[in-house]
Amino acid sequence: PGLSHVDATGEARMVDVGAKAESERLARAVGAIRMEGATLDQLRENRLAKGDVLTVAKIAGIMAAKRTSDLIPLCHPIALSHADVALTLDPSLPGVRVEATARTRGRTGVEMEALTAATVALLTIYDMAKAVDRGMILEGVRLVEKTGGASGPWRT
Amino acid sequence: PGLSHVDATGEARMVDVGAKAESERLARAVGAIRMEGATLDQLRENRLAKGDVLTVAKIAGIMAAKRTSDLIPLCHPIALSHADVALTLDPSLPGVRVEATARTRGRTGVEMEALTAATVALLTIYDMAKAVDRGMILEGVRLVEKTGGASGPWRT
Amino acid sequence: PGLSHVDATGEARMVDVGAKAESERLARAVGAIRMEGATLDQLRENRLAKGDVLTVAKIAGIMAAKRTSDLIPLCHPIALSHADVALTLDPSLPGVRVEATARTRGRTGVEMEALTAATVALLTIYDMAKAVDRGMILEGVRLVEKTGGASGPWRT
Amino acid sequence: PGLSHVDATGEARMVDVGAKAESERLARAVGAIRMEGATLDQLRENRLAKGDVLTVAKIAGIMAAKRTSDLIPLCHPIALSHADVALTLDPSLPGVRVEATARTRGRTGVEMEALTAATVALLTIYDMAKAVDRGMILEGVRLVEKTGGASGPWRT
Amino acid sequence: PGLSHVDATGEARMVDVGAKAESERLARAVGAIRMEGATLDQLRENRLAKGDVLTVAKIAGIMAAKRTSDLIPLCHPIALSHADVALTLDPSLPGVRVEATARTRGRTGVEMEALTAATVALLTIYDMAKAVDRGMILEGVRLVEKTGGASGPWRT
Amino acid sequence: PGLSHVDATGEARMVDVGAKAESERLARAVGAIRMEGATLDQLRENRLAKGDVLTVAKIAGIMAAKRTSDLIPLCHPIALSHADVALTLDPSLPGVRVEATARTRGRTGVEMEALTAATVALLTIYDMAKAVDRGMILEGVRLVEKTGGASGPWRT
Repeated sequence: PGLSHVDATGEARMVDVGAKAESERLARAVGAIRMEGATLDQLRENRLAKGDVLTVAKIAGIMAAKRTSDLIPLCHPIALSHADVALTLDPSLPGVRVEATARTRGRTGVEMEALTAATVALLTIYDMAKAVDRGMILEGVRLVEKTGGASGPWRT
Repeated sequence: PGLSHVDATGEARMVDVGAKAESERLARAVGAIRMEGATLDQLRENRLAKGDVLTVAKIAGIMAAKRTSDLIPLCHPIALSHADVALTLDPSLPGVRVEATARTRGRTGVEMEALTAATVALLTIYDMAKAVDRGMILEGVRLVEKTGGASGPWRT
Repeated sequence: PGLSHVDATGEARMVDVGAKAESERLARAVGAIRMEGATLDQLRENRLAKGDVLTVAKIAGIMAAKRTSDLIPLCHPIALSHADVALTLDPSLPGVRVEATARTRGRTGVEMEALTAATVALLTIYDMAKAVDRGMILEGVRLVEKTGGASGPWRT
Repeated sequence: PGLSHVDATGEARMVDVGAKAESERLARAVGAIRMEGATLDQLRENRLAKGDVLTVAKIAGIMAAKRTSDLIPLCHPIALSHADVALTLDPSLPGVRVEATARTRGRTGVEMEALTAATVALLTIYDMAKAVDRGMILEGVRLVEKTGGASGPWRT
Repeated sequence: PGLSHVDATGEARMVDVGAKAESERLARAVGAIRMEGATLDQLRENRLAKGDVLTVAKIAGIMAAKRTSDLIPLCHPIALSHADVALTLDPSLPGVRVEATARTRGRTGVEMEALTAATVALLTIYDMAKAVDRGMILEGVRLVEKTGGASGPWRT
Repeated sequence: PGLSHVDATGEARMVDVGAKAESERLARAVGAIRMEGATLDQLRENRLAKGDVLTVAKIAGIMAAKRTSDLIPLCHPIALSHADVALTLDPSLPGVRVEATARTRGRTGVEMEALTAATVALLTIYDMAKAVDRGMILEGVRLVEKTGGASGPWRT
């Protein structure tokens, strides 16, 4: 099978999902941002006080999920029924891990919504901590689960 | 020094850049998406024919750079003078490498614009190839250069 | 019952509406902007001639209703079937009263769409008249009716 | 019958589509941009090498289709199931012809989505070629087909 | 003097600010949302634990300030140098008070940015608390200070 | 000279305007929508009563001018100092003529802003009158004047 967004003559195209059945769809994506241990310490101390960096990143991720089809050229607009972003401090990186979930009832999957939420949450952490650590790195952003649709469930 | 977007009471805030001097500012970010060798082959064959996947990803990255302040909550709106995204197939990953550049003349840096362009270009590749390879992974998204502003040049 | 957007650990979250039944939903919101009598006179004279201030405010409110989920972080994207904004000059304030209505068939209510439409219509009046009256005040913006959904009809 | 977006008192309004039945809907729009023969030659030579101008214009048109309800004040938000833009070099103009298609399953038609896609694709060609030819002209942008909805099929 | 957004023939228009001098500009707006005492208690208890409702509302207000010219038809796009939103629980209402500040260096004022930030922050509080209290009311949203520009400082 | 948005290898790119001098820039674009005489009569009767169709189209055009860089992939974001849209009923078409003007002080021209404003105003007229006349055609959308920038003034 070929790339689904490229037609027989090689041109980019949006997949026509009109003939697909509606089903409950879920996608879950993960990723991480690695940073200096001292940066994570500052984040943690802040989180204990107010939790703001993580809250701002979470909100940014959820809002980005809703705008996925504005960002990714061949994505379909989707009426998300749910989007969530969970962030965990991980001293072993050191850094922050993200897990983003998106759900809808519709004719196309929500993988890109979950991946976009995860990515924008990590970029927001970068933005908020970059004054103390410009060398932070986004790593391992990937889909880990997908359910619904003709192809059935998929897990890494 | 503390996290610049968090004030003394720990609340999130937008930095006031009104007192900063205008200067020429550049930021360069890189990253990659790893995939199955067979997926890269399909991408490459397509590229030789029409180049579409890479062109769509490039355009998506440039357009995303212009919308950075809509996505990242505490980013300032910036009149970019230039944004560019270069994509390179790398069989050694196997996958695609991205390098994104942003420039402006202004009171605040364009790191987030470069990082957002790089990330959205990679997500677009994921979207266009996900029908054949759901396991692709975004890796190593990071700033590699920054010039302009009071803090002067920075390189990894 | 607790705040529905905050989970057991106090974190912000988007409500999962996937399990809710679709129903016809309507919301109606009202509000007002108070101004100097002389400002209202100018608005009225203008309205008799061309109606432009009120038309611009009405259009702004309808367009804002369509963008509610872009503005309110935890709002679901909704395919509105209808949005309307009615504006009435009220010399007893003196000022302008707004009533905004939103309708959809879906799994979640349209209260925020009606409130956003009402508010942006009033802000647009402020913008168009502020050169002559900076002291205008938005007052009494509130929901007055809601139908559809599991909780049934509600009126003030 | 009167203008459907204007009510009995002459005020602009959004049509309430809540009572309309869902149906498969399609719209097809065409248009063209006329240019100097030499400009078309440059476009063609470029297309043979990389196809970029046409690809960028195509992507711009598809993305614009998804944002139609943000641009056209009284348009309903629509979950497009498909949008496509085809561009053809036509030496007889000389210039480029566009055909845009939009599809959905819903309560309202997608004429504006097809027309918006066609128009923005043409504007993008203008933008990319304007450095060599400022006199290019958009011509003949019109609906050519519409199916679905109570009024049934329509063709020019 | 007449309404500045309406020309001699009564038609709406965007003011041409090209001939205005650049200056440092600030605007400050306030407002409040009144609610049941029990709702405020829930908000407060939540705030002590995590502060999320107020943080989400604050972020929503700051992000809305950046999108003001997308919402208010005749507003100029502005490169904000700063936007801030402060929220205070006030048992005497009972409810929450908001104060929003916007700054730029430019040719036009930032009153609408401050008012939009204040309003969207209040709407976000409504959204997050509406499951327990639909009768909340936005009150007293108004400009309280403006500096910069030819007209000089203004305070209520 | 070649197409300015395509680099030596044929790839699409955004022009770097950082080295261009700031200057006062203006662009003026025109266009028309042709319709049945009976449609124009309905528009005219409406205009005499309320002017709404033309006002809505005008507002849509001005708002679209502000979003040009969101729509046209390689356009720079621009802080418009002015945008205007004038609409004239022309029985000789029969139809409506549009003239759109955009101004800024900056490093890049505003041709695309004027063309986008003109086009979206015409599309809005189509939307509002399509229930009575699906065969309307956009014609002759083109730049007629441009001043400012290194290339100096240009007129058709």
